[in-house]
Amino acid sequence: MNDTPVNELPVWHRLTAHAEEMNLPENHLLHLTTSPLRLKKSLKLGAGVLLDFSRQRVTDITVDLLLELAEHRRVQERFRSMMAGEKINVTEKRAALHTAARCFQEEPVTVDGVNVVPELQAVREGIRAFAAKVHDGELRGSTGKAFRHVVVVGIGGSYLGTEFVSCALRAYADRGIALHYLANVDIHNFGRVVSEIDPESTLWVIISKSYTTAETLANARLAYDFMERHGLNPTDHVVTVTAKGSPGDNADNPVLGTFHMFDFIGGRYSVTSAVGGVPLSLYLGYDRFEAMLRGAEAMDRHAAEAPAADNLPLIAALLSVWNNNFLGYPAAGIIPYAAPLARLAPHVQQLNMESNGKSVTASGRPLQIPAGTILFGEPGTNAQHSFFQLAHQGRPFPIEFIGVLQPQYTEYHTLSRGVTNHQELWANLLAQADALAHGREAEDPARSFSGNRPSSTIVLKDLSPESVGRLLAFYEAKTVFEAFVWGINPFDQFGVELGKKTASGIREEMAEKNRNPAYGFDKTDDRTRHYLLALYDGDM
Amino acid sequence: MNDTPVNELPVWHRLTAHAEEMNLPENHLLHLTTSPLRLKKSLKLGAGVLLDFSRQRVTDITVDLLLELAEHRRVQERFRSMMAGEKINVTEKRAALHTAARCFQEEPVTVDGVNVVPELQAVREGIRAFAAKVHDGELRGSTGKAFRHVVVVGIGGSYLGTEFVSCALRAYADRGIALHYLANVDIHNFGRVVSEIDPESTLWVIISKSYTTAETLANARLAYDFMERHGLNPTDHVVTVTAKGSPGDNADNPVLGTFHMFDFIGGRYSVTSAVGGVPLSLYLGYDRFEAMLRGAEAMDRHAAEAPAADNLPLIAALLSVWNNNFLGYPAAGIIPYAAPLARLAPHVQQLNMESNGKSVTASGRPLQIPAGTILFGEPGTNAQHSFFQLAHQGRPFPIEFIGVLQPQYTEYHTLSRGVTNHQELWANLLAQADALAHGREAEDPARSFSGNRPSSTIVLKDLSPESVGRLLAFYEAKTVFEAFVWGINPFDQFGVELGKKTASGIREEMAEKNRNPAYGFDKTDDRTRHYLLALYDGDM
Repeated sequence: MNDTPVNELPVWHRLTAHAEEMNLPENHLLHLTTSPLRLKKSLKLGAGVLLDFSRQRVTDITVDLLLELAEHRRVQERFRSMMAGEKINVTEKRAALHTAARCFQEEPVTVDGVNVVPELQAVREGIRAFAAKVHDGELRGSTGKAFRHVVVVGIGGSYLGTEFVSCALRAYADRGIALHYLANVDIHNFGRVVSEIDPESTLWVIISKSYTTAETLANARLAYDFMERHGLNPTDHVVTVTAKGSPGDNADNPVLGTFHMFDFIGGRYSVTSAVGGVPLSLYLGYDRFEAMLRGAEAMDRHAAEAPAADNLPLIAALLSVWNNNFLGYPAAGIIPYAAPLARLAPHVQQLNMESNGKSVTASGRPLQIPAGTILFGEPGTNAQHSFFQLAHQGRPFPIEFIGVLQPQYTEYHTLSRGVTNHQELWANLLAQADALAHGREAEDPARSFSGNRPSSTIVLKDLSPESVGRLLAFYEAKTVFEAFVWGINPFDQFGVELGKKTASGIREEMAEKNRNPAYGFDKTDDRTRHYLLALYDGDM
Repeated sequence: MNDTPVNELPVWHRLTAHAEEMNLPENHLLHLTTSPLRLKKSLKLGAGVLLDFSRQRVTDITVDLLLELAEHRRVQERFRSMMAGEKINVTEKRAALHTAARCFQEEPVTVDGVNVVPELQAVREGIRAFAAKVHDGELRGSTGKAFRHVVVVGIGGSYLGTEFVSCALRAYADRGIALHYLANVDIHNFGRVVSEIDPESTLWVIISKSYTTAETLANARLAYDFMERHGLNPTDHVVTVTAKGSPGDNADNPVLGTFHMFDFIGGRYSVTSAVGGVPLSLYLGYDRFEAMLRGAEAMDRHAAEAPAADNLPLIAALLSVWNNNFLGYPAAGIIPYAAPLARLAPHVQQLNMESNGKSVTASGRPLQIPAGTILFGEPGTNAQHSFFQLAHQGRPFPIEFIGVLQPQYTEYHTLSRGVTNHQELWANLLAQADALAHGREAEDPARSFSGNRPSSTIVLKDLSPESVGRLLAFYEAKTVFEAFVWGINPFDQFGVELGKKTASGIREEMAEKNRNPAYGFDKTDDRTRHYLLALYDGDM
């Protein structure tokens, strides 16, 4: 199915030819954006989110060709199969059911003949009850203090999504609980976290599906030592989020609670599962976590059901393919004009670059075109005072601007230059997109702007839990749609294995040296030995 | 001077031809890294920092050609002219003397016949005395409370560098002062900051050279309103860092102190001036700020004086040009294996992309080659669990790894898998660089790694103030050297002007609407009007 390399499809060739036309001066964005009906045709509203692609370097013809490409690749059909539990992660023979984690519908979603919805619901109910007991003070630390700090011990998919959401919804964190992240194996991460917590009122949430992740286990061990040094009983201070039957789900090693993860939800898609559910419910209250799920569910349904021409994540995915493969932009910016979305870009880096940074098709054939985009971003207006010089006058890269109509804080009305801060923010967002698209000729080349730099603008009504859930699911669906167009599997990540294996060899050298201080790192190459000697010496 | 376009130099053509050879299979990194003397030739130690470029896709021939290119462009000579006060920022007719801010030598540095060193020293002495008075409790808020919070109100160059350093040196912050950043005009930034401070014990440091920056003025106005609402006298709670005679340096508007900025230090190069000096001295103590300056000074001298073949920032700059223009990598990663360096990449994004994201030469001729690199990064090992899938199996991009031999926290010795966390971190750093370079063939294409992905490794002995100063100055010098090779002016930023101008027009529309609620945004185009109506409506 879909095993024809995408670049061998006739529509791909037509897109390639069309791209040449789009590079002609008459197709500069200055002309495109002012064509009649441009606005009407390129503003799409779905699941409460607005996508404006009027400043992308596309015409009606481009959009039609891209939709034809999507049709050929049956991307929405595959999306629906994914949601229905098909084992779409073919290399690992697993379903990819992050959408089931927020499915509040009646229909069953079956994997190997079992409806997984009740099981996911039971996990949520467990989280709800647990969070309530913590908030009510029914569950307390071993010295009787209520929990005031939660430390999330987890890395990658067990960290970045939750961090993005907790940062976005910080204004709602009214449960008297501070959230900390212990992701990096770097001892600085641990040192900083323990300098910020009160051990007796700290709950550690250890998240690892296999419970074998090197970083997470090393940090968990530090946490256990730390608790014991403070005379605390870890049994009263630890919960685990892990797969059934993993070493973290073991009656011999009792903890305050264990919440299950499932092999049909991959790490980078797991924010709406127990991975995000436990810390976010503790931080924000379970109801807000569920509200976020409902926002995500609305976007899932939009992605599955809205006609392709009106489908926000699908259009965004097609534009990404267009910019990537036809207009030749290798990188793209994600610039939220909303400080609470400061950690969106790192989350989407993982979600998208780990999913689609591939060089083989789902069936294992070498890809003949580049897939995946280098993504980066910081909030605006900060970014304007940083790397936007390059955006305007250096290497062009497409941008996704994100705007929010209603801020979380509404009590400040001070005017500066006649406008509020929120209005100033919007003036800048709108201005940047226009300036990048249109440019400006000037006699002095140093003050000339070539323009024709594409962007989309995504608008959220607010930064409520529902809206954040919509945005989260938008980027998930966009990522998956891109993969379906390219014909790759967005759910595996074999590319991380070689580094792990190599690290394991070096770790063994270190462990040997730790056991035997006279050991000279005999089994490694010159370069590694040079570094290891410097490391043990503490000097170069 | 140096007005020949760089790409018309014979050595450029030789590099272009050489790059074709370097793309041959026999020049895969797997072969290059194991050649005799590779390690010896590509480990360079200078100013207490180690640069290892053994995993860059270069041979002796490449390095020789690049050094010849540097020689042709007289880059070190120009660097020394810069340090001596020459008006090297030709478009703005200014000197570029960030190096003078950390010059503890006797020799004068003159601009327009005036030695600027005593003036810079006087500013530092003022900062030292001011910080001491705050720390001793001699200076207090208007209700008599000692200062416990410092809010830095500033954006871009008045923010990112200081944030990077304060984050890197957080473990040294022992003055009982919490540091907050109010950069973004987004009201969420203000709302969050005021939720974290105690108004009576808060000192606001307002930083703007011209004191006309829209964001900073809007935030300063909010801060003044906030203080007045809390019955505080702003005169007792505000210091300014600004140019002499700016609206922020005005006796009619008295403040607790004013520290001067000078037009010969640009924002993105200003961390070692009063811009970083005031907040960092308050946060860490003046002595640590000065120690950082001394580290930066050591690197400046290395950059100016070390032979080109042993000059760390110069080699790094030449490798950047090589990767950018000859091997065709448009983006590069900055991956510190050190959580405290989490904000290095955003700082270097501004420093480098704003300096070198240009399309004209210093003399205003259009560049015929791309300059500037898209930079991004997150700390490792976090990045391994995020976008490194793409680094290994997707689009290749060169990486600068950064390692630290001695961590700031030395009291944790817990072993996991036989190694400490700090050792585990190093095992991963070394493993990633090797895995990227060497790759691994496998029968299954999905588990194959093509390798040949270049990286450098930069090693610091520790994360002391001195070392952070060295790293800061390394990236400054690297940026300037790149610019000198390309023949561009790294000290102007005309590319930010069009957006500002466009925003000004939109702001005017909003201000008119605020004055006259019946106003229908008549003076703007359809798209902007559509957004403005939605914004005032709060809905789409």
